[in-house]
Amino acid sequence: MTPSASSVGARLSTAEIIAVGTELLTPFRTDTNSLFLTARLNELGIVVRRKSIVGDEAADLGPAVRDALGRADLLVVCGGLGPTDDDLTRETVADVLGRTLTEDPAIVEHLRARFAARGWTMPENNRRQASVPDGAVVLDNPRGTAPGLWLETGDRVVVLLPGPPRELEPMFTALIHTRLSSRAAPERLYRRVLRVTGRGESHVDEMTQPVYARWRQAEPPVATTVLASPGLVELHLSTRAASEEAAQAVLDAATGELAAVLGHHLVSTDGRSLSEVVGALLRRDGFRVAIGESCTGGLVTARLVDIPGSSSYVETGVIAYSNEVKRTVLGVDPVLLETDGAVSEAVAVAMAEGARRLGATDIGVGVTGVAGPGGGSEQKPVGTVCVGVVGPGSEQEARTAQCPGDRAMIRRLATQTALDLLRRVLLSRTRERATVRGD
Amino acid sequence: MTPSASSVGARLSTAEIIAVGTELLTPFRTDTNSLFLTARLNELGIVVRRKSIVGDEAADLGPAVRDALGRADLLVVCGGLGPTDDDLTRETVADVLGRTLTEDPAIVEHLRARFAARGWTMPENNRRQASVPDGAVVLDNPRGTAPGLWLETGDRVVVLLPGPPRELEPMFTALIHTRLSSRAAPERLYRRVLRVTGRGESHVDEMTQPVYARWRQAEPPVATTVLASPGLVELHLSTRAASEEAAQAVLDAATGELAAVLGHHLVSTDGRSLSEVVGALLRRDGFRVAIGESCTGGLVTARLVDIPGSSSYVETGVIAYSNEVKRTVLGVDPVLLETDGAVSEAVAVAMAEGARRLGATDIGVGVTGVAGPGGGSEQKPVGTVCVGVVGPGSEQEARTAQCPGDRAMIRRLATQTALDLLRRVLLSRTRERATVRGD
Repeated sequence: MTPSASSVGARLSTAEIIAVGTELLTPFRTDTNSLFLTARLNELGIVVRRKSIVGDEAADLGPAVRDALGRADLLVVCGGLGPTDDDLTRETVADVLGRTLTEDPAIVEHLRARFAARGWTMPENNRRQASVPDGAVVLDNPRGTAPGLWLETGDRVVVLLPGPPRELEPMFTALIHTRLSSRAAPERLYRRVLRVTGRGESHVDEMTQPVYARWRQAEPPVATTVLASPGLVELHLSTRAASEEAAQAVLDAATGELAAVLGHHLVSTDGRSLSEVVGALLRRDGFRVAIGESCTGGLVTARLVDIPGSSSYVETGVIAYSNEVKRTVLGVDPVLLETDGAVSEAVAVAMAEGARRLGATDIGVGVTGVAGPGGGSEQKPVGTVCVGVVGPGSEQEARTAQCPGDRAMIRRLATQTALDLLRRVLLSRTRERATVRGD
Repeated sequence: MTPSASSVGARLSTAEIIAVGTELLTPFRTDTNSLFLTARLNELGIVVRRKSIVGDEAADLGPAVRDALGRADLLVVCGGLGPTDDDLTRETVADVLGRTLTEDPAIVEHLRARFAARGWTMPENNRRQASVPDGAVVLDNPRGTAPGLWLETGDRVVVLLPGPPRELEPMFTALIHTRLSSRAAPERLYRRVLRVTGRGESHVDEMTQPVYARWRQAEPPVATTVLASPGLVELHLSTRAASEEAAQAVLDAATGELAAVLGHHLVSTDGRSLSEVVGALLRRDGFRVAIGESCTGGLVTARLVDIPGSSSYVETGVIAYSNEVKRTVLGVDPVLLETDGAVSEAVAVAMAEGARRLGATDIGVGVTGVAGPGGGSEQKPVGTVCVGVVGPGSEQEARTAQCPGDRAMIRRLATQTALDLLRRVLLSRTRERATVRGD
């Protein structure tokens, strides 16, 4: 990368983000741009120290900008660059920095052309978007009318970006390459995400603690954060290093040790989701799958079909909510429904068999459970979930889980449990093949 | 309500919210408590002027608290009340207000008892949670170990609450009744949400503008906000009034006029979702439904099954992703698949018929489309979606939609389109019945 003019400036190591918009102070909208911005800034080794959300009022925004510039090296202000009178970011920031605004004829021309391309005349209001404070660098917005701005004041930098994520994101990505990267410290942050299923947060922590206690002492040191969501634990490893090779080497080694400890509980180390991993395993073996779902009501199939290209391995899914459909469509033995009950491992396996038969697939998956709020009993309380996997040959596996939470949470956990059992069945075939082939 | 001691204080009309936690400054977590708090505060007529997110550092939190108290009547600080050393909210706020912290023996006892009830000994760390600044009112936390605090300083109020939403939410709700309500202005905010499908944001705006221009002049005036999400437009009506009767009367009247203008595009005026409305209509008529899904891969059925009690009207759903399954399971005529193509209104209707036959239900729904990224053609580009509804008698309806966006968005819009067509078919029966019965 050729160092740009701005690379002579001081290093930027701390940042603040201000999201501007009265709608972000209602119960219905929240700022999400800052998550994207934080990820990118962290990669550059820049730490976000504070985020603020203020309305479209110069009296609120002005002091927020002034205060932030007293604390952080870099201030990113998102939103309020639109053409209407309540969009005040440009004017307010210019005022705080004591800069005059001048209309940039090139921007006006560009805006006119943009409107003309759609057969429209530019509303006069949009001229406001062509106002540029003295000394600002204009940042092109390929997806909207609001250009961004880069302003320097002493050693500090202020960046103004439009609020819509589809405009902001490519603009910020471009900015990293043109200006930001050369102003950040040479150390970069590198991350690795390990996804784990089948074990709770504290259990995962217990298993992995000795490993990352060691890696915390490595050079460069590896920091670990554990993030849990329903049915999934994520280990975020990160390391700060000036050389990508050094960073990747240490992350590879730490990941390898954690993988050994986690065994088949480890779903992925490359950011892939559970359904992506399951899809890849099915594709690897050339298997097609059919799903019979009761309490999950279509979510297991929907999660698999989420992945582009899934039509090559998802044949069909049947939502068999009533016992009637379990019998007539999936061919579950009425005696089994009577003796074991609709929520049982035997019925989960029978549903998997039925789906497999119906779809003429290699593998069948069955899920049945009590999602609540009604329908629980003492023996099978709300949250009881049974999953079964049959195939590719005569193999069959079943699991029962007690899922906590409300109806939505139980269905999410049941879906996760079913996909995870399918993953484990497919993985165990890998082990067998490896044993047979000796590879 | 009996006015509490604090009702003698000055009226609270503006608020700021500070969320404390270094994890909220990473790319992986965001503050959501403020949405809940804002909704409740707005109901009390209190406006949120700024939200800030700071890390677990006294050097960051202290100035943030001091600055906020210079601006707002009420400051709500969430998080940082845990037992560990990096939880600094209590100490930092006490320091800013110049209050001494004293251990409250009652809280220590309460914490010990809480641990003892689980058979555990209280870790010494937890004593920190019993520190109370001079003059503070302790707010009970039934779901966790961190008590909340209410502090007054001059005419201003600072409230400290724990970060976990399941602890914070009931505590704040209790606080409204015990202390906040009597300190707010007598005017309250009342809201009504109208959900609209089948028309885009600007179209809905055009239809409704004349109505809400009028209601903006009413007494009390009604404010309107339009919020659009994929396949759904929400009109939020709100009015501020000292009397609930006056507010509800004006909202009822405005809602009635908007309903007349929106006709069958209006889904609900009482906060119910599309699938809740569809469920209620099915239940009303005692109908059961079966769904045949291709591109939506289970999402239509999953949305219907989302609703508690849906087992009384959802019989089955079949995900027929391949033509093979469309033929063998749903009995779609292979000639139709050949002549009209898998993505066609004729096939959507045939899938609906097939699902209805399979489930022996009153009504069948079929969805087929090109969700992408691959599979599009010039005539049927990515985003082409066909939905069909058959039943209860020989009725059949079909629609084709061009859905924008990526795979996930197209599937979401296709799901919405299918549920909406089902709703319209069920609604048109209401009209017919009304005509026949003369009611």
